Amino acid sequence: MPSLAPDLPARLALAQAIAREAGAVALDYFNRRDTLVIETKRDLQDVVSVADREVEELIRARILAAYADDGILGEEYGLQSGSSGFTWVVDPIDGTSPFVNGMPNWCISIGLLYSGVPVVGVIFAPCHDEMYAGGLDMGATLNGKKLTLDPSRNIRNAVTGIGANSHVTPATVAKIVEDLLTAGGNFIRNGSGALMLAYVAAGRLVGYYEPYMHAWDCLAGYCLVKEAGGWYHVFPTEGEKLTKGAPVIATAPGAIDDLKAIAGL
Amino acid sequence: MPSLAPDLPARLALAQAIAREAGAVALDYFNRRDTLVIETKRDLQDVVSVADREVEELIRARILAAYADDGILGEEYGLQSGSSGFTWVVDPIDGTSPFVNGMPNWCISIGLLYSGVPVVGVIFAPCHDEMYAGGLDMGATLNGKKLTLDPSRNIRNAVTGIGANSHVTPATVAKIVEDLLTAGGNFIRNGSGALMLAYVAAGRLVGYYEPYMHAWDCLAGYCLVKEAGGWYHVFPTEGEKLTKGAPVIATAPGAIDDLKAIAGL
Repeated sequence: MPSLAPDLPARLALAQAIAREAGAVALDYFNRRDTLVIETKRDLQDVVSVADREVEELIRARILAAYADDGILGEEYGLQSGSSGFTWVVDPIDGTSPFVNGMPNWCISIGLLYSGVPVVGVIFAPCHDEMYAGGLDMGATLNGKKLTLDPSRNIRNAVTGIGANSHVTPATVAKIVEDLLTAGGNFIRNGSGALMLAYVAAGRLVGYYEPYMHAWDCLAGYCLVKEAGGWYHVFPTEGEKLTKGAPVIATAPGAIDDLKAIAGL
Repeated sequence: MPSLAPDLPARLALAQAIAREAGAVALDYFNRRDTLVIETKRDLQDVVSVADREVEELIRARILAAYADDGILGEEYGLQSGSSGFTWVVDPIDGTSPFVNGMPNWCISIGLLYSGVPVVGVIFAPCHDEMYAGGLDMGATLNGKKLTLDPSRNIRNAVTGIGANSHVTPATVAKIVEDLLTAGGNFIRNGSGALMLAYVAAGRLVGYYEPYMHAWDCLAGYCLVKEAGGWYHVFPTEGEKLTKGAPVIATAPGAIDDLKAIAGL
């Protein structure tokens, strides 16, 4: 069944082109971060903040040049409403901690909502030159290769990604780890929630759980996972909820029940 | 002070050449793993085991061709004693879980012991083309660039790596996570302990802690961290202890006390 959202293939193509351009800008900052600290006399965190804002400005400008009536929500500059029914949801650099510290696990995440549903998901990992792209009812791909999740994979024979931030207590994070290991699972945390969601779509992780994430961290990944044949816990997008945090789970078919149980959902 | 171990620069150069050759073989398996599963009618885990053994055989052959009297301990084929006083300690593919699942965080780890002390550490990450190399009193480098740890970094302003395996109870892992977060830290776990130790040497992580690791997982990383200006918790190498597991901590100067406290050491 084709999606009811109009002009979706064009928007998906645009999202990929923008993510690649934005990724090149971010990668240039990443590769020059030590020099920039010296040149600008700022600390590393400030340099990353400058990169984050510049990348989001670029993404916003490119989107509005093509679709002036679309809304945009970005991590750095908040929500700008539109009138088309579409809202882009953007994390210019997801995984700022790896980025700051020189690790390759960061990405550009560009999602698109229509009637509250993620209809485009594009995640680009510049250090690995990996482009994850999906559109509602159009499937998901990694560097052009179709992604299809294996129903035989579960938390016991595959790896689960987890994440957390300062909104979540240490005891809560510890309990997630303990419950996952006790259930026979294993975990990684690579520092970028969006990238780990893309890994779920690619079958590299069987699922991802984080108790509190924002829309810009997860909506692109949600579209990818769904289109690869997986499942996600719906993120609330009505009104102000779109800018608040919520629990995020996305999994291959064989891990839904186990991860819901661990999340208490 | 120059090391008392003879012929160390030549052994360090050999280790790098071997790691690069071994990395190319492993990367070829990694890139062809899905095809190999179909062609050989084996499962992924078996394909990785074949790769693991082939890579270790290659490393052993190259070492013995150059230094027939050196001992070798490898994860796959155990300990072969030598008479030179040197023992190579090899993990052909560290991070088999990322390797099996298509994630880039795996590496070749080649360490060298002399009088029980790690005197060479070489870790090569083929997916990122990163060669970490260090020799006792010779410093440590990443792709030829000298590594020097920043004494101002600690668990609160940087990221700590953690690891665990089935020798460690879920409750123990959970407690490590809770204690680290409660102390104001943050963690990643990328699936390869050796690679995370290399990241400590590179200043990407401020420290690494795993309650139970083997010598082949940690000795190369230990040499790297030490030579970059960091500290490690000595791994017991006398007699049979060399082939058993032990707690592993390696850190930048500013994280020693915090990680020792978390480890209860």
